[in-house]
Amino acid sequence: MGGGPSTPQLAAAVAGAGGVGFLAGGYLSAEALAADVAATRELTPRFGVNLFVPGAPADDGALAPYLTELESEARRYGVELGEARYSDDEFEGKLAVLVEAPAPVVSFTFGLPAVEAVSRLHEAGSEVWITVTSAAEAQLAATIGPDALVVQGAEAGAHQGSFEDREVEPVGTLPLLQLVRAAGDLPLVASGGIATGPGVAAALAAGAAAAQLGTAFLLADEAGTAETYRTGLTGGGETRLTRAFTGRRARGLVNRFLAEHPDAPSAYPEIHYATAPIRAAARAAGDPEGINLWAGQAHELAAPAPAAEIVARLDTEAREALAHASARWPVSR
Amino acid sequence: MGGGPSTPQLAAAVAGAGGVGFLAGGYLSAEALAADVAATRELTPRFGVNLFVPGAPADDGALAPYLTELESEARRYGVELGEARYSDDEFEGKLAVLVEAPAPVVSFTFGLPAVEAVSRLHEAGSEVWITVTSAAEAQLAATIGPDALVVQGAEAGAHQGSFEDREVEPVGTLPLLQLVRAAGDLPLVASGGIATGPGVAAALAAGAAAAQLGTAFLLADEAGTAETYRTGLTGGGETRLTRAFTGRRARGLVNRFLAEHPDAPSAYPEIHYATAPIRAAARAAGDPEGINLWAGQAHELAAPAPAAEIVARLDTEAREALAHASARWPVSR
Repeated sequence: MGGGPSTPQLAAAVAGAGGVGFLAGGYLSAEALAADVAATRELTPRFGVNLFVPGAPADDGALAPYLTELESEARRYGVELGEARYSDDEFEGKLAVLVEAPAPVVSFTFGLPAVEAVSRLHEAGSEVWITVTSAAEAQLAATIGPDALVVQGAEAGAHQGSFEDREVEPVGTLPLLQLVRAAGDLPLVASGGIATGPGVAAALAAGAAAAQLGTAFLLADEAGTAETYRTGLTGGGETRLTRAFTGRRARGLVNRFLAEHPDAPSAYPEIHYATAPIRAAARAAGDPEGINLWAGQAHELAAPAPAAEIVARLDTEAREALAHASARWPVSR
Repeated sequence: MGGGPSTPQLAAAVAGAGGVGFLAGGYLSAEALAADVAATRELTPRFGVNLFVPGAPADDGALAPYLTELESEARRYGVELGEARYSDDEFEGKLAVLVEAPAPVVSFTFGLPAVEAVSRLHEAGSEVWITVTSAAEAQLAATIGPDALVVQGAEAGAHQGSFEDREVEPVGTLPLLQLVRAAGDLPLVASGGIATGPGVAAALAAGAAAAQLGTAFLLADEAGTAETYRTGLTGGGETRLTRAFTGRRARGLVNRFLAEHPDAPSAYPEIHYATAPIRAAARAAGDPEGINLWAGQAHELAAPAPAAEIVARLDTEAREALAHASARWPVSR
């Protein structure tokens, strides 16, 4: 939900309805994160913050040809290509913000924070959740003492939270929950392809302690989702994993930009910064074919509504689905 | 489970434990299918038969370069490449067998049978199930009057049962169940990435009437899985969708053959027949690097056991998982 959709108002509306609202900390400056955390805390005590763990700078040799390819996109939208710069996303600064003004939950994506960071967050009173996309990552994550694992399946919209951006086929949410459960006993938060109460019920029946939904809230009234993005989402269609927009595999609706750049290299966040002016211009021009339309595989089930209504419906229908299934298939005597 | 693993003994063991055992009718002659159906009926009244719906002959232009590429594989294993022939898999003959000597369930993969075939099977007393891999296929399938839809997610081992062999990214089991449910009200059988009781429970909680497992039974005592295949499976590793072995997308463990032929064209069953002697030779030589190691994404959770034991454990643990989840998240008052 980074880069726009995430707002303090959305997190608070989700929390008010009994969920745990998350702020996307990625791409924000430490200062902006501090402001969002403060704004959220004024509205609810029940929220989490997600941070991106920084990786290594990209290989210039792999990056250069793609930057050349992107020049035509820049010309199309009448902008200069952004600087393909490395950034650590102000990771240490954001950690300091969260130690100073703690959130109930801090989750991490793209890898493991230092054990020392986990300790500082624990001392500040926060739970630490780690995003994993394989059983091997789950086993690595367990070694730094997290409180829960966010199990992100292949179906999830936006970036795959993998520790490394490899070519391996990502594993679906349903098998991944079973594989991670077999590899350890931390509480699991299921994410990827969950859009309905029965979908939440499935995650809970598979052994998750909670389900995390992103795409289902993109059209929520309180989401900061840009109009051009909303337009693209309501157009529907197929999703695909792509590195075209950011240099790291992420799932989005297939549009012109995604389709025309199938061979983007692994170079994150350099490509994210290089394409930023293009995406901003396409967004301003109301052209959904030029922006990253991040969406999970169940995106067609997302609908506009107040976030509290979405949460209440998910909650009611998940409980009903579990009651129905357990009555139909009771424990044998 | 076609091409070896499926046996009357496996189907009967599954049925004896309370499941519905399936015979894989694909690749068999009509005569061999008749014999397998007769052998199964002697063991149990509770079984199904799966048939492959024939497609169109391949485009020779796309096929020829791949056949040239396969020559080195044929040399490696000291065999002649098989004839890259089209076949309708004796589809009409098999339908006649099943009208003559009906099975309780007949399921179809790779498309829709004629409405007239559905009528004949219904008149013979069979249920008709159709495999679908998208909400659009589910809506098409509903028009021919089936009794249930087999909802096959991206995670499934072996062939994707799609109506057409396209490049689209397949949808995961969990979102697919939600999308298909939103598009109609036929009973759903969930398949793909289900390997444990909690996995079955998840499918049922998501609204499926049953779960269908394949990979979970590949190592069963009663399965006809070749020794070389069993060896490859126990070696573990990542799976990928490939056309290398058959010319149609199927999920298998990444081995040498799969990795070295990433660009196989869509040409089924021609490539299936062309590679058959290679695969037979590799199998006989005990070389798992040269055969199709079909496996779903939860394959690491498959273990050798009598099939009845696998079914009993799935059943017990699924019911327990549903009871546990519905007790933890009861319907609100």
